[in-house]
Amino acid sequence: MHRLEDRAEIHDQMFRYARATDWLETENHLLVFAEECVFASPHSGDMHGAQNVVDWMSRVLAQFEATQHHISNISITFTGEHTATAVSYVRAWHRFLDQSKPDMILWGEYHDKWERIDGTWRIRERRVLEAGIEPRRDGGAVNPRRAKQ
Amino acid sequence: MHRLEDRAEIHDQMFRYARATDWLETENHLLVFAEECVFASPHSGDMHGAQNVVDWMSRVLAQFEATQHHISNISITFTGEHTATAVSYVRAWHRFLDQSKPDMILWGEYHDKWERIDGTWRIRERRVLEAGIEPRRDGGAVNPRRAKQ
Amino acid sequence: MHRLEDRAEIHDQMFRYARATDWLETENHLLVFAEECVFASPHSGDMHGAQNVVDWMSRVLAQFEATQHHISNISITFTGEHTATAVSYVRAWHRFLDQSKPDMILWGEYHDKWERIDGTWRIRERRVLEAGIEPRRDGGAVNPRRAKQ
Repeated sequence: MHRLEDRAEIHDQMFRYARATDWLETENHLLVFAEECVFASPHSGDMHGAQNVVDWMSRVLAQFEATQHHISNISITFTGEHTATAVSYVRAWHRFLDQSKPDMILWGEYHDKWERIDGTWRIRERRVLEAGIEPRRDGGAVNPRRAKQ
Repeated sequence: MHRLEDRAEIHDQMFRYARATDWLETENHLLVFAEECVFASPHSGDMHGAQNVVDWMSRVLAQFEATQHHISNISITFTGEHTATAVSYVRAWHRFLDQSKPDMILWGEYHDKWERIDGTWRIRERRVLEAGIEPRRDGGAVNPRRAKQ
Repeated sequence: MHRLEDRAEIHDQMFRYARATDWLETENHLLVFAEECVFASPHSGDMHGAQNVVDWMSRVLAQFEATQHHISNISITFTGEHTATAVSYVRAWHRFLDQSKPDMILWGEYHDKWERIDGTWRIRERRVLEAGIEPRRDGGAVNPRRAKQ
């Protein structure tokens, strides 16, 4: 029931995702995502396929001097021997190369489907929801459970 | 000594607390707190009983468009087979419905007593201390160890 | 391979480091660092020896009303029975006693070498890299992998 080894492996993959992004080693996302995957960021539609995730990351990250993705509150639910869902929080800080722009911060949630493929846990689907963005702006994909108010 | 399964269960409950708050599913605090509990937030006195925690949460959260509670640095000390103390850090971000108010951020600490009751780890006592609040203001419950300077 | 007990012990030591700093119990760094150690903060040169770390911490922390070090994304790689490397993220918030100064925030990375000495995991070397600092300023030790762009 506790599946502590599997939890540790998924945690490690979550942080590899962050470093692949923050260190501009975007090709390392191929080690985290399943080849057939869905990635839905707040301000893009659904992307399909790990290589498309890499390409998109490489493109959008070029505008930043630095980013940092702090992942916390990782909650994993195993749905089978090789499958799990996970919810986690992220505070994603973005500093633009254009120094006239203020830092942009996403207070987000990752809603994931994980699958163990050939012995490695990978993201089959990641949906990024927004609690909010600084500076304040509208749009994005709000968690419907919060938005119900 | 390591009690890794118990740690994982307490971690999961810590994050359930955050989601119950951030997703406005305040009734889920009944799954986290012991029925007989104490919750001391920085700007209220001690509250007693899980239902009072739910009622207070529902009341104060109504003023926010969104909140997010990032919990980190979770340190657990087991004091018995079914009891533990825990210290953790929280960065609690609050965005008001009133858009003229700036986001409020609490840099806090949770000082907890946990107890396993009928097989489930629950919060018997949670005291929220403040490292600081943005925008800067006075008041709150400062960690006396820091305040000794 | 998973070494879950060792991971938990290193996690605990990481958080003890944060509390030793944030609670001004700087002498507790002697419980975290190896006696012979290197600590390289972004705005100092390399420091050698745990007592020098304590002295430096006590000196620089005196200017702050409060600090909080949120550690996340802890990734540990065991390199031997008693040795490991680790990368983690830190969001280090600093509030000055001088109220005319804005809060200073370091978005950093800890790049560590850990060693188990007499049964306790300790930091043999910690290098603090900077993703960025708020308010924005130049200088510091940038992760060369990010800086390659």
